[in-house]
Amino acid sequence: MSDGAKNKLSMIVFSGDMDKLFAAFTIAVGAAASGMEVVMFFTFWGLRALKKKVPTGKGLFGRLLGVFYGGDISRATPSRMSFGGLGRWMFKKMMKAKMVPSLPELRQTAIDLGVRMYGCQMSMSVMEIPREAMIDSVEACVGVAFFIEQARESATTLFI
Amino acid sequence: MSDGAKNKLSMIVFSGDMDKLFAAFTIAVGAAASGMEVVMFFTFWGLRALKKKVPTGKGLFGRLLGVFYGGDISRATPSRMSFGGLGRWMFKKMMKAKMVPSLPELRQTAIDLGVRMYGCQMSMSVMEIPREAMIDSVEACVGVAFFIEQARESATTLFI
Amino acid sequence: MSDGAKNKLSMIVFSGDMDKLFAAFTIAVGAAASGMEVVMFFTFWGLRALKKKVPTGKGLFGRLLGVFYGGDISRATPSRMSFGGLGRWMFKKMMKAKMVPSLPELRQTAIDLGVRMYGCQMSMSVMEIPREAMIDSVEACVGVAFFIEQARESATTLFI
Repeated sequence: MSDGAKNKLSMIVFSGDMDKLFAAFTIAVGAAASGMEVVMFFTFWGLRALKKKVPTGKGLFGRLLGVFYGGDISRATPSRMSFGGLGRWMFKKMMKAKMVPSLPELRQTAIDLGVRMYGCQMSMSVMEIPREAMIDSVEACVGVAFFIEQARESATTLFI
Repeated sequence: MSDGAKNKLSMIVFSGDMDKLFAAFTIAVGAAASGMEVVMFFTFWGLRALKKKVPTGKGLFGRLLGVFYGGDISRATPSRMSFGGLGRWMFKKMMKAKMVPSLPELRQTAIDLGVRMYGCQMSMSVMEIPREAMIDSVEACVGVAFFIEQARESATTLFI
Repeated sequence: MSDGAKNKLSMIVFSGDMDKLFAAFTIAVGAAASGMEVVMFFTFWGLRALKKKVPTGKGLFGRLLGVFYGGDISRATPSRMSFGGLGRWMFKKMMKAKMVPSLPELRQTAIDLGVRMYGCQMSMSVMEIPREAMIDSVEACVGVAFFIEQARESATTLFI
């Protein structure tokens, strides 16, 4: 297959920051809307983008993580000017004023356009986030080998 | 077209950190110097790399953002060891001592080598940064669809 | 050469954060295990991943950097929830409990699988980290032109 035929975009979403998730989903929606196949692989902090609003963690550390980094996609804070939650509130206000969709809306649009979302098995195990704590639209929980295969077939692969 | 013919490098510059901007422009200059076509798409915090030293923001939040994250490329601070501005000063000193060009110089070299720079329309609207607040070398302010098209034609695409 | 023949993955490892290094080495090991050629180019904070546990820095700033950002790969702290070293300890515990290899082990596996690691000459010079302060497995210290060439030949290139 020549690369001219490659029509897939894949992303590793490592970050759980509001602004970076916003960039990731905007790119996903843009690529899907232009007819590309889009695959998102969520790992580490990025897993928050796929979580339901339920407590997670079994052991002491897992529960601590659930408390300090818990909640769902709407709890994501910007990577800069977070100001203990104030930054999130401010950016939400600013985006709404400019008619920019919210993170949960963007994610839903991505799902509606057929963007496939995967969770990283290893991070879920380490961070003690079970499959049940994640939204139903998640295709599967997979390992790094799966991602490598997707990246190989992609015209563009991003680490966000 | 086979991918062997692809000779373009594209970047999404999301970060406005001094060290990451330094990496982005160094890669841009290196690629352009080796004969590649280079396209940089600046979004969110990365927009600072294209700003003039003028106040921005119309509403309360936009103006707050202008105050806390204002200034031009020379105001960028490192992502680590920022120490309230001291880190920036220290890195500038260290780079100068090793004859490494400054950020504004690197950006100018990139422009001189024909690197094309674009601003993300949506972030500019949300952050209330008008076209007039940006340097003249900015080609245009575009949406995500434009970037997707560039990435598709690129041998390499980076998210920085 | 058509892109279907491209079987190389290249990475710029800019970050020195424990979690991002973990992602970088996991991807490197996964790709190498699946038969890809893997090239890692370490720059700026990422250089810590290749350092021995020796003091670095000649001038005042270089020595300051050596003190505040010194040590080897085992000193890397997570990008979030660092809690002054507590986060590192917690993640190490959690990973060990799930039988996930440590960072030094992952790096060794990458080396054993033939992953090639390069240091960025310019950052080493600016940060005053000499070649002798780096582990023997580092292939060479190279400039941006070398990396551009590698990226051009790669099916996938990531900036981490």
